[in-house]
Amino acid sequence: MGSGDVYKRQTPKDGEVLLKTKYVSVDPYLRGRMRDEKSYIEPFQLNEPVESGIIAEVIESNSDDFKKGDYVNGMLQWKQFQTSNGKGLQKVDGSKAPLSAYLGVLGLTGITAFLGLKKIGKLEKGETLLVSGASGAVGTVVGQIGKIKGCKVVGIAGTDEKIKTIKEKFHFDEGINYKTTEDMSKAVATACPNGVDVYFDNVGGEILDAAMANINRKGRIVNCGAISLYNETKRPTGPRHETTLIKKSVLMQGFTVRDFQEEFGEAVQQLATWLQEDKLTYTETIVEGFDEIPQAFIDLFDGKNKGKMIVKV
Amino acid sequence: MGSGDVYKRQTPKDGEVLLKTKYVSVDPYLRGRMRDEKSYIEPFQLNEPVESGIIAEVIESNSDDFKKGDYVNGMLQWKQFQTSNGKGLQKVDGSKAPLSAYLGVLGLTGITAFLGLKKIGKLEKGETLLVSGASGAVGTVVGQIGKIKGCKVVGIAGTDEKIKTIKEKFHFDEGINYKTTEDMSKAVATACPNGVDVYFDNVGGEILDAAMANINRKGRIVNCGAISLYNETKRPTGPRHETTLIKKSVLMQGFTVRDFQEEFGEAVQQLATWLQEDKLTYTETIVEGFDEIPQAFIDLFDGKNKGKMIVKV
Repeated sequence: MGSGDVYKRQTPKDGEVLLKTKYVSVDPYLRGRMRDEKSYIEPFQLNEPVESGIIAEVIESNSDDFKKGDYVNGMLQWKQFQTSNGKGLQKVDGSKAPLSAYLGVLGLTGITAFLGLKKIGKLEKGETLLVSGASGAVGTVVGQIGKIKGCKVVGIAGTDEKIKTIKEKFHFDEGINYKTTEDMSKAVATACPNGVDVYFDNVGGEILDAAMANINRKGRIVNCGAISLYNETKRPTGPRHETTLIKKSVLMQGFTVRDFQEEFGEAVQQLATWLQEDKLTYTETIVEGFDEIPQAFIDLFDGKNKGKMIVKV
Repeated sequence: MGSGDVYKRQTPKDGEVLLKTKYVSVDPYLRGRMRDEKSYIEPFQLNEPVESGIIAEVIESNSDDFKKGDYVNGMLQWKQFQTSNGKGLQKVDGSKAPLSAYLGVLGLTGITAFLGLKKIGKLEKGETLLVSGASGAVGTVVGQIGKIKGCKVVGIAGTDEKIKTIKEKFHFDEGINYKTTEDMSKAVATACPNGVDVYFDNVGGEILDAAMANINRKGRIVNCGAISLYNETKRPTGPRHETTLIKKSVLMQGFTVRDFQEEFGEAVQQLATWLQEDKLTYTETIVEGFDEIPQAFIDLFDGKNKGKMIVKV
């Protein structure tokens, strides 16, 4: 493919729409699709555009389902213009919430937080919820849902500024900066004197080990992400957890939000209600310019984003 | 305590019974209670008798609930005679099945197999079930339930004789001798060409790693035991599994059968029905003599038992 293709306007065929990209979501899980191995979603192909969640404007329509001026949300390619047969596109209403919110708190990241806690964490009022990647797009929603449910919420993040943000803006009860903490297991014990009932894991690795050391009987570990391991080139090793799982009747479950697709509608409705009631807030980092997409993606792994990372085209 | 105490007859008080020990169950999980640490059950105390599942005869009764000549099953002490207030004792019927069966296939080991598969494994017809510790008391029941449910069943054990037994006596489809197999992950792949849907783990460690390498999307790992790790003095390490859990939406859940106490009655009823219909068979290793209890327990860790290990007093 010539690099010029990404800017090219095509003509929509019968039943198709021509889309102009407005907002592009860049997400850690895309890293997995850059490996040529089996996963819940097929790997990216060389010399084909990357795809991710995108909000686009319909600028020409030969489809009965969409009209010019509609905004849609879908898994689309990193192109300025593209045609689509409309399959998998959802219309979004820019009057209810800013368009970019549909890539974050009302999009897959918000839905991931909501359904991970509901389907796997089964969080109950009064429990202690520990969240890693706490200042990220998923983590901030997880923590806020924990507070809405009446739980003690402790977040783990990598700078003092992020810790300040999760406590002040997102109302977490406690925060732990893992980069300046020597003994994470002890720090979790101190922040969670009643132990950890639900650990929502976005990072894996040694922070998971620290959570496991403090997990309560019948605790639940929601394995949502393992960003600390994604760029490892050797097979990562660590302490074995099976004895703890057995002794304490602990559940660990990995998931991708697509596992619960039939509940997306309910999730978005609940999240939108909380947003309108001001029970939920969000942060986004918006980078401008189509050519900035790759760098914005790379910056995720250095933690340069606050909240959801989005590129405005 | 003087060592003579274990042979001493006491007099039952009002509401109590005097019990004579007939059959003593020795089980790998007792090893955990010999460590002074938190678990689902309190550790044994120094200078106090060990306790385990025991079938005893009521030889004197001052209780309205039991009469002389009744047989009971309960968590009792390693003593020849002991009194009990009857709490936690279940009467057993020696005419329906041999008394020792109530310590095995109709006792906690059979119930563990049944409820682990039902509540965590959620095994479905046509799936592939992999079982480690396959020739043990729990493993043989797990495998047979797999066949009753119409699954492909593959067992892992440590001698060629055990492999022969699980295939010939317990109708497993395939067996893998982990002691003579160099690449367990490859051996599991060969025995399970459609991958592993449910792995019932009695051993933990490297065999769990081999199962994880072959787990299917939405696979379930029932963490029932980790006998390969119980005698480790250093903290065992191994490959991290969180990336696999996420990529394949896999569940791992530890349990102890006591988590599901309200379903014991149903479990025993189903197991007894299968036993009477000849769909279920069992093996036990019966050692004779009260003084042999400790050695029988130690022998478990060298795999000297076939099926349930029981001491007849």
